[in-house]
Formats: sequence, structure tokens, C-alpha cells
Amino acid sequence: MRFDYSEVEPVLTNILLRHGFSADRADLCARLFAETTLDGVYSHGLNRFPAFIDSVKRGIVRPENEPTLLRSCGSVEGWDGNLGPGNLNAWFCMQRAISLSREHGMAAVSLRNTNHWMRAGTYGLQAARENCIGICMTNTTPNVPPWGGREAKIGNNPIAIAVPHEPYPILMDMAMSQFSYGKMEVLEKLGQKLPCAGGFDKDLQLTDEPAAILESGLALPAGNWKGSALAVMIDLLVAILSGGATTQEIATRSEEYGVSQLFIAFDLGQITDAENRARAIKEVTDSLRETAVIEPGSQVFYPGQQTRMRREENLEKGIPVDPDTWEKIIALDQD
Amino acid sequence: MRFDYSEVEPVLTNILLRHGFSADRADLCARLFAETTLDGVYSHGLNRFPAFIDSVKRGIVRPENEPTLLRSCGSVEGWDGNLGPGNLNAWFCMQRAISLSREHGMAAVSLRNTNHWMRAGTYGLQAARENCIGICMTNTTPNVPPWGGREAKIGNNPIAIAVPHEPYPILMDMAMSQFSYGKMEVLEKLGQKLPCAGGFDKDLQLTDEPAAILESGLALPAGNWKGSALAVMIDLLVAILSGGATTQEIATRSEEYGVSQLFIAFDLGQITDAENRARAIKEVTDSLRETAVIEPGSQVFYPGQQTRMRREENLEKGIPVDPDTWEKIIALDQD
Repeated sequence: MRFDYSEVEPVLTNILLRHGFSADRADLCARLFAETTLDGVYSHGLNRFPAFIDSVKRGIVRPENEPTLLRSCGSVEGWDGNLGPGNLNAWFCMQRAISLSREHGMAAVSLRNTNHWMRAGTYGLQAARENCIGICMTNTTPNVPPWGGREAKIGNNPIAIAVPHEPYPILMDMAMSQFSYGKMEVLEKLGQKLPCAGGFDKDLQLTDEPAAILESGLALPAGNWKGSALAVMIDLLVAILSGGATTQEIATRSEEYGVSQLFIAFDLGQITDAENRARAIKEVTDSLRETAVIEPGSQVFYPGQQTRMRREENLEKGIPVDPDTWEKIIALDQD
Repeated sequence: MRFDYSEVEPVLTNILLRHGFSADRADLCARLFAETTLDGVYSHGLNRFPAFIDSVKRGIVRPENEPTLLRSCGSVEGWDGNLGPGNLNAWFCMQRAISLSREHGMAAVSLRNTNHWMRAGTYGLQAARENCIGICMTNTTPNVPPWGGREAKIGNNPIAIAVPHEPYPILMDMAMSQFSYGKMEVLEKLGQKLPCAGGFDKDLQLTDEPAAILESGLALPAGNWKGSALAVMIDLLVAILSGGATTQEIATRSEEYGVSQLFIAFDLGQITDAENRARAIKEVTDSLRETAVIEPGSQVFYPGQQTRMRREENLEKGIPVDPDTWEKIIALDQD
């Protein structure tokens, strides 16, 4: 099923309005969900909307709670998310980082006590569209074993980095597991295997079966000890800078809420010159495009290039929506 | 061969004094090389000293060139390294970032036109010992194929992140290849295989033989497409923010010089409180220590914990020095 982008957003907005969101907040929240699917990030868009509404109904996500300022010091601010909607809180904090970077050249904004922000790349893109390099990271509930371990004790702690580029930013958006759980859920639904080992089954054997990894909860850290170490460092950065929960503390809760995040913006207009930026981007993207490939007929892409291509395709043909997901969303609109 | 730490440094200092370094700069440069080996990072310490002196002799590294300020804007500065010694330039810039963070809460300092900084972790530790979170990253000459490619077009672009902790900081120091070339050289010298596939041989087959990867120059990115993407983003960050060379531009030179770097410091004393920091660190390190393991009798370490253990061992027993390396160093002292 494909829907025109302009049809999808109002459906979500209407549901949000009926679940305690004021008009402006419903609009933005709906747009962020719909744009994620528009961009082809099917693991973190519309498919998560029913569970998001469910967490609103259960009081885990509090629709009208906005962030409150805890601390301000030069180019650094710390905010409390008050368990508001994760995507609205994150959007707010990246906007603060962008504004502060206009004053200081760059800025960092921490956020504690917030909820799942859905797609990490959303906030990188937000910064890049304001001519900032945007970096953001979050911790999560434990869902990956640290290297050498046989139990999930660290989060897959996603990070996004975005660089302004037209018509679509250069964007890396990745979790520290070789595959995100969202991606594994999508492939399991399609009955597909992973392209390489992505975790351990319950007998601690490496496997490329998403169902086995979803069952064990033992996703492989990307790059083995390297992804494991980077996940630990991200947890420390977000928890120390925000004064919020570590993955270990989130683990004590009945489900994932109250996570910690960090948003960084560099105001390129002030601290770099446009000609140099264009040169660097051209050199990097040209070099990748011209790389000889292993698989004949394939191509080396820059980070975000395939997302851009999927976005263009979906704008033209409509957003692909899983029928089960759409049925659940329509039901929410009628309950 | 093991030498007392206090014996090694003066030998290096003396050689540096005879190759154009003034007294203070020779002292610091010698200390950074010796401390790297003291910390057990054998791939980036004394073993690189003979090649470093050779690059001084050939005019690639210019011992008395200091960084000059290009741009200053709030919490951001940009410096030109003037092809001075990479470790002294990097030390200077992280010190600038630390100083600026005292004024602004955090700061970022870019550096262009510099040389190999040897061990990335050095500058993370430098910040952590001043109660800052330190983050630093560099680009390199191309030495890794981007994901899907069959030629080395991206750098392995190391990054270090350090968090203050006593008696030794929590420290992640990693290149974007699954193994650094330095590490592969060490294992090749010892006649050992890599613990897992670390790159492609010249027939584009994955291999765990360091010699085959050193020959092909095709190291595997850590986490496949993930390390590849992060390497590209690091190249963009350092080149855009410093206005310096990308990996692609470095590739046009006869050897690696004039790289681009970035140094970030967060002044924890101002922007966080000590009790929260201690809580977060205790939660993270306790959680890792208590993780059930795959290999009976093993242990899950936090990043930098094994470095701390090697440092303690080397302080007690003396620094292990490869006899060939020591012979080369002694020869330099006499030429």
C-alpha cells in the first residue's frame, strides 16, 4: 500500500489531538513520524505509531509535558524532559542547540528524563537544514551484550551525525548493534535473513536469523568490541552531561522510559567558509562515487544517499505503508 | 627487554634535542611517545619513534613550527598546524579546548595542516586529567575500502573519547578499521593471526592474516558499513571545521602529512555535579563488571580498563621494548 504523504500526516495529527496533544504539538509530532517513513526509515516511522499512542494512554509518555531548564553555562544547557514525547523533546533540544550555536559558534544541550526519540537522524537533519552540523546521541534500555558478555547489559545507543548538503544532508544514523532491533523486526516480518551475523541465539551461537536474535535479546555490537565500547561511552556522555539515567538505571524499570540524550550543533555560517565546505564535500562524495566496487554493477554511496533516493521515490510514488500497521492506525482514529 | 620508564624518556629527549627540538618541546614530545608505550599501546609508541625522526630529517615534520590561530568565534577556534610535530600540535589544541571550555562550558578546536598525532587516546587523557570529557578525531591517508568498495579510498580516521575517572580515565581509542594498521604490524611481527577477519587479501577474500592485509591495504571497516560511514563523517567533520585537507586530498600526496583534526572538551566542574558523575560512572562500570561472560574465567572490561592494568604492570616491571626498535633508537642517539 502506498499513500500520498499529504494524506498520511492529517490522520496521525487527528489521533494525536484525541490523545491529549495540543494543535501545534500534534502537527509536529505527526510530521516527524510521517517524514521518517517518507525517508524510507521504515523501522522507526509509522510502524511505531500504534505503540507510541499506547504509551501515551498508559501514562508513560505525557503529551503536554515540555522540557524545563536545569542548567545553563555558556554554550551548554541541560534540560529535563519531564517524560514528554521523545520526538518533541528532542526537537526542542536540538533547536536550543542550534540557537545557542548562533551565539557561541557551537553548543551542546543535554536532556534527561525523556522518552524514545524514534529516528535519531531526524534531529541531525533538523540541524543540517539550518546550516549546522548536527550530532545527537541517546542511551536506551539494555539490549546488547557488551563484548565478551552473554547478557544484554548495554544499550544500542544510537548516534546521528548530519552535514548540510543540497538537496538532502549527508547523514549517518546508526545504533551500536550491527542491526537495530527495528530493522530486525522489519526483516523478520518479511521473512528475510540478515545479510551477515547480527547476534547470538539463545544457545549463544552467532546467527543471521532475526527471530532468534529478537528472542534472545543478544544483538551483536557493530564491530564487536568497537561498537560495544562506543555504546558504553555514549551512555557515559549522555548520563554524565544530563545528570540523567544510565542504561543500568533504565534497566531497573518495567519498560524503557526516562532516557538521557545529547544534542550538539556547529553553526557553519560563522565558523567555516562556504567555499571550503563545498570543496570538502565534493572531494568526499566524488571519491566515494568513483570507488571501484566488489559487486559488479553496484555503487558506493555516501551516508544518507540511499535515504535521499528513497525519499525521492516515495515523494513521487507515495509512502509505502504496511497494511497491518495502517489497519492499527485507522483503528486508533476510530476508538 | 624491559626498561624503567624513567630511563627511556631521557634517551628520546636527547635525540629530539639533536634534531631541532627546543628543550620544552623535546621533553613533551619524548614523554608522549614514552607514555604511550608505558600504557601498553605498543602500536603507537616507541616503535614509531625511528620513523618519526626520519620524517623530521626529511622535512615532513617541522620540529619548531607551532600552530597559528586562523579563526576564533565564541567556543570555537580554528588553528593551522604548519606541519609541526603532530603530537605537539594536538596537545596544544586540546589544551586550547580545555581552556576555552573553562570560559564557555565546552569548546571545540579544529586543526588543519598537521601531522600524525600518534596515539589518539593521549589527548583524551589530557582532557580527562583536567576534569574534562575529551573527544578528539583525525583523518588519515586512505587505508580502508568504503563498504562495498575494492580500493582503499577512506581513512581509518581514529577517534578517542575520555571520561575523568580515578586512578585512570575511562578511555575509548579506536580507528574505524576493525584493527589498526599499527596493531596488525605488531601481530605480524609476532607471527600471530588476528582474532577475527580484519580485511581483504589481494584477491578480495576476507582474511585474518595481518601480512595479507598489510599487503593489500584493504582493512575491513569495523562493523562493515557502520565503521565505513563513521569514517566518512569524521573526515567531513575535521575537514569542514578546520578548512583543511580531506582524506581524498591527502591521497594526492607522496605520503601522509597535512591531516585535519578536531578537539572537543566539556568542563565537567561547571556543567555537571560531582555526585551525579560518580553515580553514572559507578553504574556503568559495575554493570559491566557484573556481566555474565561467554568464556568461563574471562571478564567484561570497561573501555580503558585493560590499558590501566597494563600501565600499572609496566610501571612496576618496566616498559617492554622490542629489541629491534630499541636498537634503532640507540642508533639515532649516536648518529
